[in-house]
Amino acid sequence: MAIKLIGFPQPPNTLRVVLTLNELGLPFELEPVTDIQTIKTEDFIANKHPFGKVPVLIDGDFVIHESRAICRYLISKYQKDAKVVLIPDDPNKAAIVEQYLSYETAYYDPPLTKIVYQELVIKNFLGKPIDEAVVKQALEEIEKVLDIYEKILEGKDYLTGEYSFADLLHAGCAQYIYADTAHSYIFEKRPNVKRWIANLRNRDAFKKTYA
Amino acid sequence: MAIKLIGFPQPPNTLRVVLTLNELGLPFELEPVTDIQTIKTEDFIANKHPFGKVPVLIDGDFVIHESRAICRYLISKYQKDAKVVLIPDDPNKAAIVEQYLSYETAYYDPPLTKIVYQELVIKNFLGKPIDEAVVKQALEEIEKVLDIYEKILEGKDYLTGEYSFADLLHAGCAQYIYADTAHSYIFEKRPNVKRWIANLRNRDAFKKTYA
Ligand SMILES: N[C@@H](CCC(=O)N[C@@H](CS)C(=O)NCC(=O)O)C(=O)O
Ligand SMILES: N[C@@H](CCC(=O)N[C@@H](CS)C(=O)NCC(=O)O)C(=O)O
Repeated sequence: MAIKLIGFPQPPNTLRVVLTLNELGLPFELEPVTDIQTIKTEDFIANKHPFGKVPVLIDGDFVIHESRAICRYLISKYQKDAKVVLIPDDPNKAAIVEQYLSYETAYYDPPLTKIVYQELVIKNFLGKPIDEAVVKQALEEIEKVLDIYEKILEGKDYLTGEYSFADLLHAGCAQYIYADTAHSYIFEKRPNVKRWIANLRNRDAFKKTYA
Repeated sequence: MAIKLIGFPQPPNTLRVVLTLNELGLPFELEPVTDIQTIKTEDFIANKHPFGKVPVLIDGDFVIHESRAICRYLISKYQKDAKVVLIPDDPNKAAIVEQYLSYETAYYDPPLTKIVYQELVIKNFLGKPIDEAVVKQALEEIEKVLDIYEKILEGKDYLTGEYSFADLLHAGCAQYIYADTAHSYIFEKRPNVKRWIANLRNRDAFKKTYA
């Protein structure tokens, strides 16, 4: 039985899982949510996600939700048969991947999410004026963070050297900055960061996911 | 050589690691940061944490930072010799732990952190008036989240049934609500949540950490 993924085919949460499935070379069936009411039913809340959210992954009779938990499940279950190592078995190597995963959550994602929210949701989607002060402050914040990334990425193709789950999680927000904002210069003006982002966006699994 | 942990002995980030060390029964030496300038030096930034933050763990010649990454490192390296299983080996069981870890990050921690910030930092520490609207809204948010936890915890001692890393990460914020605010009723008024929090706070490792 094929893996089934229920999700909104656009926002970061579902595509994060799709990118993981594609990196691991796993076939799957996407069941797109077209009406938000379908994920707020008693049945969905009881059997799929108690918070009435997606993505939800169904693998045989195993049901799992929350995007990062789904990705980790796929990695720990299927990585051994895949061509890529997203989280190494060695505890020390895995720890460095976890360190950069924590950077994504703590330092990289929050300012970028603020920018994407203003420009993608408020401006493009709702057609309303954005809060320039929020964008300005978030840009200042991410520029400081990317200065540190610039040093970390010196002489490296990826954060730990090799491609990993940490790079994978950084790719989604970067794509939104390129696709939906005029701020891709924050990556482009830093040579190491620029090379890294290009490496991420050039991967087959990335192109397949964001095509 | 003993494990060394550099950190502020109070805030959530360092104590999260201390609780993990205590649960795993690992001896360690805590090097408290007394002057924030010591973590902003060129040497600290180059060799300990590029963002100039703590906790940082040193295990032999391996240096690792970011609290959640440190906890995961300790689990993957030392759990096999410990009396407790914080993340199970089985991918399906681990996935459910990861699901509840994601609840902590996505739904539980954000409103509680807002409350703790107002009452612990602004009121108790800085002696300034708190923003009542922020506290009110955060309380409404966490109450909805805890209603869902109340159902999940029906007939269970811990989130997955057995104690895990997911429970461990929920303990810190709960402790602040009890110790530094008048809002512990959010836990106390829900019988399953109340029992769960009592289970967390009754663990030997918890008492040792928060004594
Ligand atoms: N923490 C969750 C967030 C999931 C989430 O917010 N999903 C959105 C779609 S991208 C959703 O279901 N929104 C509907 C709602 O919150 O009512 C995850 O990582 O999967
Ligand atoms: N994401 C980090 C956060 C660490 C953090 O914010 N630590 C605080 C102390 S609890 C700190 O070092 N603050 C000093 C600063 O940010 O300048 C983690 O999980 O370890």
